[in-house]
Amino acid sequence: MPVNAQLETLLNENADRITVALDALLPPVQGPESELMSAMRYAALGNGKCLRSFLVLQTGRLFDVDERALLRVGAALECVHCYSLVHDDLPCMDNDDLRRGQPTTHKAYNEAIALLAGDALLTLAFDIIADEQTHMDPHIRISLVGKLAHAAGAKGMVGGQIMDMYAQNLGDDIAAVTRMQRLKTGGLFQYAVEAGAILGRASTEATHALIGFAHDFGLAFQITDDILDTIGDVKKVGKAVNKDANHGKATFVSLLGLEPAKERVKILCEQAKGHLRIFGTKAEILANLIDKIEVRQS
Amino acid sequence: MPVNAQLETLLNENADRITVALDALLPPVQGPESELMSAMRYAALGNGKCLRSFLVLQTGRLFDVDERALLRVGAALECVHCYSLVHDDLPCMDNDDLRRGQPTTHKAYNEAIALLAGDALLTLAFDIIADEQTHMDPHIRISLVGKLAHAAGAKGMVGGQIMDMYAQNLGDDIAAVTRMQRLKTGGLFQYAVEAGAILGRASTEATHALIGFAHDFGLAFQITDDILDTIGDVKKVGKAVNKDANHGKATFVSLLGLEPAKERVKILCEQAKGHLRIFGTKAEILANLIDKIEVRQS
Repeated sequence: MPVNAQLETLLNENADRITVALDALLPPVQGPESELMSAMRYAALGNGKCLRSFLVLQTGRLFDVDERALLRVGAALECVHCYSLVHDDLPCMDNDDLRRGQPTTHKAYNEAIALLAGDALLTLAFDIIADEQTHMDPHIRISLVGKLAHAAGAKGMVGGQIMDMYAQNLGDDIAAVTRMQRLKTGGLFQYAVEAGAILGRASTEATHALIGFAHDFGLAFQITDDILDTIGDVKKVGKAVNKDANHGKATFVSLLGLEPAKERVKILCEQAKGHLRIFGTKAEILANLIDKIEVRQS
Repeated sequence: MPVNAQLETLLNENADRITVALDALLPPVQGPESELMSAMRYAALGNGKCLRSFLVLQTGRLFDVDERALLRVGAALECVHCYSLVHDDLPCMDNDDLRRGQPTTHKAYNEAIALLAGDALLTLAFDIIADEQTHMDPHIRISLVGKLAHAAGAKGMVGGQIMDMYAQNLGDDIAAVTRMQRLKTGGLFQYAVEAGAILGRASTEATHALIGFAHDFGLAFQITDDILDTIGDVKKVGKAVNKDANHGKATFVSLLGLEPAKERVKILCEQAKGHLRIFGTKAEILANLIDKIEVRQS
């Protein structure tokens, strides 16, 4: 099987298994609060790529971590990612009607339900990780909780979201845009590899290498996102395109230009691969993933 | 000093100390994300009664728990309470302009910032608890995280909020309204006493007694809230009154009538005191608090 097809198969398998895990972890749709449960499921089970949980699983496998633990933490991380998308799509934020080719949660339900479903998904992530089924060692579980709270909070993802809101004010400051993206999307990518490292009781050296990989990979991912927003096909991308330019927001493409942005992706992908070298052939799938991001079209 | 004045002093002291703790735990207002930090502080440091953290501290004292731990967990709980108020006040929810006599967070800032400040406060709560400064034993910290996630999530507070949204549909079902309130407001009251019990390594008997107390106290608190919404003075209450009746929502007052609702408060307060009996004079302040709720005007 060609490398790319093999990776595609692994990604699809991961998405399927995370969906099964989430289905079991999400509360059942019943009672007077059933609209909430239904919206949580709509938001979390909606055919995403599950890239963040894929990173958790692939990183954990470097250290031969038990797969049940990885699936639980991966599912928790997808809850946080999906909550952020639901809130980001709300009318007071990006006001998006389309996500992954489907109506956004507030369009399929209503704004209040989308707000609360996002809140409940974030809370559920901590619930899942805190449960002793995730890992018998409370040191490991509390470390996973603390890192997630940090990655998702005011000094992480939410901080990045507010910077993104004011991205018009960042002007042509490439350092500020880079920092914004490191917080907004980089935080959860970093958490994904840290989670694998924590569960695998990785050495400091291995953990630092993985964090380096996550930084470069996450930034490359974001720049390709900006590139797709500029030149992508709405049908392939599955959400509105040209949004940032329409809102006068600084992006890597607007700041660097299209070709230099592509060049930057290439450099970041090379760097990301460099960080994986210490893991040898065990990190082959992660290396293939980097290649895939470099040429992504959705 | 008369009992009521003494309790008032203790409540004010607690609010002051929780404010100091929160001030140190909330991220400083700086950088391009400073509007977020500023809104978090506005929402969390806004002269509330800090009743939930008072319960954490008073419950912890039954077991001679170290006060620094109690203040941290109390502060985390206030973060969750305040996040729920910020989101509850948003236009797509209750659309309230006034909270504690001040403009609500989305009025003082804007909707997007209020949304994200709420998200960040919820996340911060888990960050605070997970930190080893809260307690050196990871068993204790992870137990505090798990219980909080449960109390605040889809099967707790957020579930209660969605039921409240559909309260018009609950009809004259007093059991459904009671369940809604147990989830919506009861969850965090229960968490407050459970946190004290967890930190104090309380016996099962003591924990159950405290949960019984929290149930009855929380419900009495909610019914007095409904009573104040009906007959209260907007200046004393500090928020809009008559909201529920105007929205055709079932409340304890609309279902039971005013006098029977007052009678129910009396019975619940007696029950709540009954649960405290096993703690003897150590629970005197909690008993005084029950008396205060029975006659509350704000």
